[in-house]
Amino acid sequence: MITAKSGSGYTIGFPRIEQRLFEQLFHSIGPAPIRFVLPDGKEASPAGKSPVGTVFIHDNRTLAKLIIDPEMAFGEAYVEGRVHVEGDLVRLLEEVYQSMGTSPEGKYERLTSKLLNWWQANTPNGSRNNIHHHYDLENDFYKLWLDPQMIYTCAYFASPEASLEEAQEAKLDYICRKLQLRPGETVTEAGCGWGALAMHMAQHYGVTVKAFNISHEQILFARRAAEERGLSDQVEFIEDDYRSISQRCDAFVSVGMLEHVDPKRFVDFGEVIYRTIGDKGRGLLHFVGRSHTGNFSRWIRKRIFPGAHAPSLAEAMNILQPRHYAVLDVENLRPHYARTLEHWLDRFEASSPRVIEMYGAWFQRAWRLYLAGSIAGFRTGTLQLFQITFAGAKRQSSSWTRAPL
Amino acid sequence: MITAKSGSGYTIGFPRIEQRLFEQLFHSIGPAPIRFVLPDGKEASPAGKSPVGTVFIHDNRTLAKLIIDPEMAFGEAYVEGRVHVEGDLVRLLEEVYQSMGTSPEGKYERLTSKLLNWWQANTPNGSRNNIHHHYDLENDFYKLWLDPQMIYTCAYFASPEASLEEAQEAKLDYICRKLQLRPGETVTEAGCGWGALAMHMAQHYGVTVKAFNISHEQILFARRAAEERGLSDQVEFIEDDYRSISQRCDAFVSVGMLEHVDPKRFVDFGEVIYRTIGDKGRGLLHFVGRSHTGNFSRWIRKRIFPGAHAPSLAEAMNILQPRHYAVLDVENLRPHYARTLEHWLDRFEASSPRVIEMYGAWFQRAWRLYLAGSIAGFRTGTLQLFQITFAGAKRQSSSWTRAPL
Repeated sequence: MITAKSGSGYTIGFPRIEQRLFEQLFHSIGPAPIRFVLPDGKEASPAGKSPVGTVFIHDNRTLAKLIIDPEMAFGEAYVEGRVHVEGDLVRLLEEVYQSMGTSPEGKYERLTSKLLNWWQANTPNGSRNNIHHHYDLENDFYKLWLDPQMIYTCAYFASPEASLEEAQEAKLDYICRKLQLRPGETVTEAGCGWGALAMHMAQHYGVTVKAFNISHEQILFARRAAEERGLSDQVEFIEDDYRSISQRCDAFVSVGMLEHVDPKRFVDFGEVIYRTIGDKGRGLLHFVGRSHTGNFSRWIRKRIFPGAHAPSLAEAMNILQPRHYAVLDVENLRPHYARTLEHWLDRFEASSPRVIEMYGAWFQRAWRLYLAGSIAGFRTGTLQLFQITFAGAKRQSSSWTRAPL
Repeated sequence: MITAKSGSGYTIGFPRIEQRLFEQLFHSIGPAPIRFVLPDGKEASPAGKSPVGTVFIHDNRTLAKLIIDPEMAFGEAYVEGRVHVEGDLVRLLEEVYQSMGTSPEGKYERLTSKLLNWWQANTPNGSRNNIHHHYDLENDFYKLWLDPQMIYTCAYFASPEASLEEAQEAKLDYICRKLQLRPGETVTEAGCGWGALAMHMAQHYGVTVKAFNISHEQILFARRAAEERGLSDQVEFIEDDYRSISQRCDAFVSVGMLEHVDPKRFVDFGEVIYRTIGDKGRGLLHFVGRSHTGNFSRWIRKRIFPGAHAPSLAEAMNILQPRHYAVLDVENLRPHYARTLEHWLDRFEASSPRVIEMYGAWFQRAWRLYLAGSIAGFRTGTLQLFQITFAGAKRQSSSWTRAPL
C-alpha cells in the first residue's frame, strides 16, 4: 500500500480518482482525526494525528453518497449497516462536529431541509403524526433506559457524579424554584411527557396543574401515575394540542416541547402563553436550542424526530417580545444534557438485546446514533440547552438575587 | 367648581372643550392616579383613586403640547419650568409608565424618533459628539453623586440594604467571576468609563487589560487613577473608538456601552468581538435593554443621551449569533438598577445647589427628571438591565453550575 500526503492533510493509500473523492469528503467534514477503510481494504488517516476511531465503508455507492451529502448519508448508511464504526462513536462524532465548525449549509442541504419542513409540518394534524412517531413507541421501550420517573429531558447535575435519578429530581425542583411556585397557585404545562414535572409541582409545591400532551401513550401512563400517587385532584392530564390551551393560571411551563413547534408559529405560541398568564404571570421555557438560527439535523428529523427544530435565542424571543415579556434569566445547561445522554446511552447499550428483539437491529442502530450524536452535539456546542425564565410586563420582580435558586 | 365623572374615569371641573382635551391627554397616558391643575386653577383627578402627586400646568400652550406628544412635551415643559410637580416624582412617573402599558408607538413618535436617529447617528464622528455631550461634563459634576470609584452603571446589591459603594464593588467582582478570569490572561474592555472595572480586574484577578473609551475626560481620570494605584503596567487606557479594537485576547467585556452602538451595526460589533477573542474566548455584555424592540425615549435622547438605544435581547443576538457565540447565561438585574439610581438621585438632590451653580436650574431639572424617570422605568419594566455571558463556538464550558458565582 502506497501512502502519500494529500492536500487535505490526509495520508491516503489509493489511486488518484479515489484520492480526489476522499479529498472531497474531507472538504465536507473537515480534517477530523478519523481513519477510513474502503471496501477494498485501502485506508486513509489524518496526517500527524492519532485517529479516535475507524469508519468502515462497505461499498462504493455508500462512499459516493457520503461525498454528496455526508450528514444524511452517514446516518442512513450507519443504520442500514453499510458503514460501521470501530472505536468510540461519541468521540468520533465529536471530532466530525468540531472540524465541520461553523460552515454554513450548502444549497443541497437547504433544499432537502425545506422539503422535510414541508413534509413534516407541525400543523395540528402534522404535530399529531410527528409526536406519535416518536413518543408513542411503547412505554416499555423508554423504561429500558430512562429513569423510573420517565423523564425524557435534560437533567440537572449538582455535581457530575450525581446519579441520573438524583439529577432528574433536582431538575424538577430547580424548575419549581425558578418559577417561585406557592401553594394554591395554578400552573399550565404544555407538553408534559409522562407527567413527572406536573406531579412534582403538585406534590411538593401544592399547586394545581393542567398538563397538555398529544401523545396518547404518555397521557395514559401519566394519569395512572397520578392516581397511584393520590394526585388526581391536583393534576389534570389533558390529551390535547397546546394550541387548545385557554384557561387562566399563575404560571406557564414547557419543558422539551418547543422543539416541536414550528418557529414560524412562535408568535402564536406567545399568544397561547398570554392567554394563560396575561401580563402578570410568569413562566419557564426549557428547550434544545442552537447558538445560531438554522435547520436542525436532517437525518434526526427524517428518522427520529419528524418536524423537530432547535431554536436560537433570537427565534425564542419571537415568543416573548411581542407581549413584552421580560426575560429574567437564561441558563445554558448544555453540559448537563451531555451528561444526561451519557447515562441514557449506557443504559440503552446495556438493553440492546431487548431493543433489537422489540424493534430490530436497524432501529437499535438508529437510536444509538441519535443518542451518541446528541452527546457529541452538546459536548461540542452544535446543540445548546436553554432554560428561560420570564415574567409578564406588569409583574413586579419578586427575587432580588439568584440566592433562592 | 363643578366636578363630574368623565368617560375616562376622571373627575373634572371645567367646560366641555377642556374636558375633551383632557380626555385626549388621559387617552395617551392612561388612567394614572395623578391630579392635574390647569393655569386657571381648575383641576382633574382620577375617580376613586388617591393621586400620588399633582402636575401643575402653567399655560395653555403647554397643555396643548402635552396632548399632542405627552412624553417629549412633559420633559421639555418640566425642565423649562412650564409644568411643576408636587409629590413623589418617581412614583408619579411610575404610575404614568404603568398605565401607558404596552401600547405601540404612534406615527408621530416614530417619525420624530427617526429624525433623532438620523441627527444623532453613531458614526465614528457622531459617536464622538454624542459621547462628548454626556460623558465629558466635568468629572466634578459626576463626583457629586457617583461613588468614589466613579462607576456609572448598574451596581449589584447582595441585599437591598447594601451601600452603593459595597454594591459597586460587588458588581465589579461579579463580572470577573462570570468571566472566570485567571492570572496572566488578557482582557479587552470596550467603553471603560472612569476605569474602575479595568483596574479591579487587574488588581484582584491578575489580568492585563486594554480598555477603550472615546471620552477624553474619563480617559485622563482613569490613567491618573491607574498610576496612583500602581496599575499602569497592567492596564492600558486607550482613547479610541471600539471599532479600532483589533488585538487578540482571552476575554471581552463591555459594560454600559452597547446603548451607544447603532443596533444596525450590531453585526459589525460582533466582528470586533470575533477579532479579539475568536471562537475560543469568552465575554460579557452588560447593558440597559428592553423587553421588546423599539425606540428609546425621545426626550432622553434629545436632552441627556444623544444617539442612545436600549436593545432587546433579540437585537443583542445579532451581535452573538453570526459567529455562533453560545450564550451561557443571561441575568436581568433590573431591580438593582432601580436601587442604584435611587442612591444616585438621593445624592444628586442633596447636591442640587452645587449643580445649579455649575450648570443652571434648567440642567438640574433635566438631570433630576432623567434619574427619576430611569428609576420609574426599571421599577415598572419599561427598562431592563441584561448581563449576557457568552463563549466562543470552540470553547469548552468550564463551569458545571452557577455555584462559583
